[in-house]
Amino acid sequence: MATEIERKFLVARPPSEDALGRGVHYRQGYLAGEGDVDTRIRISDDEAWITVKAGRGVARTEVEVPVSLAAAESLWPHTAGRRLEKDRYLVTVEGGTAEVDRYAGELAGLWTVEVEFASEEAAAAFAPPAWFGVDITEVDGWSNGALARRGRPEDPPGSG
Amino acid sequence: MATEIERKFLVARPPSEDALGRGVHYRQGYLAGEGDVDTRIRISDDEAWITVKAGRGVARTEVEVPVSLAAAESLWPHTAGRRLEKDRYLVTVEGGTAEVDRYAGELAGLWTVEVEFASEEAAAAFAPPAWFGVDITEVDGWSNGALARRGRPEDPPGSG
Repeated sequence: MATEIERKFLVARPPSEDALGRGVHYRQGYLAGEGDVDTRIRISDDEAWITVKAGRGVARTEVEVPVSLAAAESLWPHTAGRRLEKDRYLVTVEGGTAEVDRYAGELAGLWTVEVEFASEEAAAAFAPPAWFGVDITEVDGWSNGALARRGRPEDPPGSG
Repeated sequence: MATEIERKFLVARPPSEDALGRGVHYRQGYLAGEGDVDTRIRISDDEAWITVKAGRGVARTEVEVPVSLAAAESLWPHTAGRRLEKDRYLVTVEGGTAEVDRYAGELAGLWTVEVEFASEEAAAAFAPPAWFGVDITEVDGWSNGALARRGRPEDPPGSG
């Protein structure tokens, strides 16, 4: 589906290692951003994808296509200064599956969590569990593209 | 192959319709450009691709992956102001196959031709046929991304 309906939060209290389970390590390099479009490569240990995200807010257009590791690595040098690394964990919450990201490298210490929904109504109705922090879905500077380019911003009002 | 070695020229005298043969119509919308990277979608009558080009000059990194028409159309609205249309024809020349582009819409009247090579040596050794015009491989403003965003620039010195 080309429309992704998603909310993103800071993590107030990271789940235990047991609750997190086994994560997947990703490197993400942002190829180019312009207007409301951002394009990236994502590389795991053995797979890679090109992803295009367009639009702002809860409902965005997202297209992701697999690409060979060799092709992804050939693009990687062109993402210098626009990169991040993270481990992603899938945690079940009421209303869906939470994608918990523990950032590494320059963003170490940062955790975020995203939940994808089937409709904007479901997104609006979602009651975040207590371990979720502030909703950063529409807060500037907290997209992965922004984090990769400019690092971690000031925490938004209401955090911590 | 992720490295594309290519030279691009204006067309001094377009080949006859017979020599051009049957073309393929493409719409190209540029998703985002940043640094030396540009990303686009290309849509023909029945296929579509996401393409990433990085670097400058004769040898560039290029990765192209097929994407569904539905996914490509979902991204198209996000390329407003960064589009072009053309018909592409394949014409045999000594040293390879020339990709002849006849632009349409706001760029109507413009023709360019590209030839891809196996090595930079072969690219340097290429003797363009008489119907080729000025070499625009390294002339600013003549990439398709630039043409789509800013329209046709002044013709470079030596043209016409």
